[in-house]
Amino acid sequence: MRGAPGGGHCPPIALIDITTYLEERGARVDSYLDTVLPAASHAHGRLYEAVRYSIFAGGKRFRPALCIASCEAFGGLTEAALPAAAALELIHVSSLIHDDLPCMDDSDLRRGRPSCHRAFAESLAVLAGDWLLCFPFALVAEAGESAGVESARTLRLVRELAEAVCRAGIVEGQAEDLDAEARHISFEALRALHARKTGSLIRAAARCGLIAAGVPLDDVVRFAAYAEPLGLAFQIADDILDVVSDESTLGKPVGADDANQKSTYVSCLGLEGAQEMAARVAVDAHRELDALPDWVDTRVLRALVDFVVDRRS
Amino acid sequence: MRGAPGGGHCPPIALIDITTYLEERGARVDSYLDTVLPAASHAHGRLYEAVRYSIFAGGKRFRPALCIASCEAFGGLTEAALPAAAALELIHVSSLIHDDLPCMDDSDLRRGRPSCHRAFAESLAVLAGDWLLCFPFALVAEAGESAGVESARTLRLVRELAEAVCRAGIVEGQAEDLDAEARHISFEALRALHARKTGSLIRAAARCGLIAAGVPLDDVVRFAAYAEPLGLAFQIADDILDVVSDESTLGKPVGADDANQKSTYVSCLGLEGAQEMAARVAVDAHRELDALPDWVDTRVLRALVDFVVDRRS
Repeated sequence: MRGAPGGGHCPPIALIDITTYLEERGARVDSYLDTVLPAASHAHGRLYEAVRYSIFAGGKRFRPALCIASCEAFGGLTEAALPAAAALELIHVSSLIHDDLPCMDDSDLRRGRPSCHRAFAESLAVLAGDWLLCFPFALVAEAGESAGVESARTLRLVRELAEAVCRAGIVEGQAEDLDAEARHISFEALRALHARKTGSLIRAAARCGLIAAGVPLDDVVRFAAYAEPLGLAFQIADDILDVVSDESTLGKPVGADDANQKSTYVSCLGLEGAQEMAARVAVDAHRELDALPDWVDTRVLRALVDFVVDRRS
Repeated sequence: MRGAPGGGHCPPIALIDITTYLEERGARVDSYLDTVLPAASHAHGRLYEAVRYSIFAGGKRFRPALCIASCEAFGGLTEAALPAAAALELIHVSSLIHDDLPCMDDSDLRRGRPSCHRAFAESLAVLAGDWLLCFPFALVAEAGESAGVESARTLRLVRELAEAVCRAGIVEGQAEDLDAEARHISFEALRALHARKTGSLIRAAARCGLIAAGVPLDDVVRFAAYAEPLGLAFQIADDILDVVSDESTLGKPVGADDANQKSTYVSCLGLEGAQEMAARVAVDAHRELDALPDWVDTRVLRALVDFVVDRRS
């Protein structure tokens, strides 16, 4: 647990900047995903074509990166975090596919390309989302067994992932989001909504990283507390980007929140207010990282917090 | 593992007939589900109303019953099988909700009532299905931990459930089914389709029962082999019922397969041919049960095989 962070064939984290780090770890996640996902040449080609189309669409891989960075910070190897990192991305993409459906947000564009149901068919988008929601559990269970990880630890990964979806998780978040559309909700309601819709999986990402690193299971929740302000900062930054970015950088229509009359941190606090809040929440995240034991190498996690607040897409 | 079958407050299995057995165990599953599902009075009431509406719609609880009967046959207690039994039903109902969607089979009726998307909204039906697909993993993980079940055993439940959905499982089955609609497929293709769409979860039901009973994990696949012909018999009987039953008994429109030009065992083999095949496959299932060790009490499982072939709804 206390070995040198990084590990594997990755360059040591101190020598690279956060953009390079994200690219490098993102590439490892992509290559792992490519290995574990069924080939599009599979007998059920269209299904797995839709799955691969949605997975390999140039996502930022933020949740996997947070999982891996958390694992490395607590002395784990990059590869120990890969199954959970991949699982987080699969669940995330599943929720995007279903959120884009005509009966939900009805989005034609996702990451600069036609959304899954536009590129394939609505039925296949439902099924691809279902597959992506369930496969992560097979993946972490099988990978844990192959790698000889103790079952209690793998089972804890399963719990964190499932609870991020189902216990005050992303499904409730999306249900609330639909419910809140076209009416103004209070700041507190918005915060509760996003804690479910976005925060739950970001929390799981950090916790899964610590579990993969071999942190004693009783310490995981406490040590991963930095994920709460980090998740909040991520969502506020997302709302800000919807206003200040342009479509080609963002890969989806800008101003979509406003067009859909969605309540956002910007509509609640104004642009400047939202930017101030993001900065304040980033300070909270750094404070949580300050409180970690000395043997935790928090450098990449700190850079990740700053990246989240400063990002352009 | 070799204790008296039955257990808890259930009457001993030898003294009751299979219909009573199914009612009794079904009631225990329902009562367990009622305890573990969030209340409809929950803050996200509409979501859990949709979940409960679909779960408590008078399903036969065949998969839970097979799981429990398998557990009891191998000497396990009824209650040891409840989390997995409930998980199987949740996954099954999730697939029904999504299969009924307008973009899939477009069914207005399910179990004699409006289907989930008709009773609520399409968006809520997608989300309820997602929730029901993922919650089982939280449920079995949490229940295993509370009951002090060894983690390796609980993790094996997770694998069986996830693989029934994602590894030649129900998602591929439904994708194939949509693909096969309105064109005739070969008998072999039909069989492969149903092995995925229906067989995979029935196989998982038997295996999960054995895992819950404490059967050595290396013996589970071999001992649960009776689930293969049983699953096939179940599907053939389903196709026969679509032709010979009436809507009020079946709870859904009869002749739907024909109207949708779906290939079925009846369309491939004729009614008599399908009935003969069901009988033959039931014999296969009994033969698999014959091959089990002496200490396995196969009486309820045998009654279940016969019930599947003879059922009227």
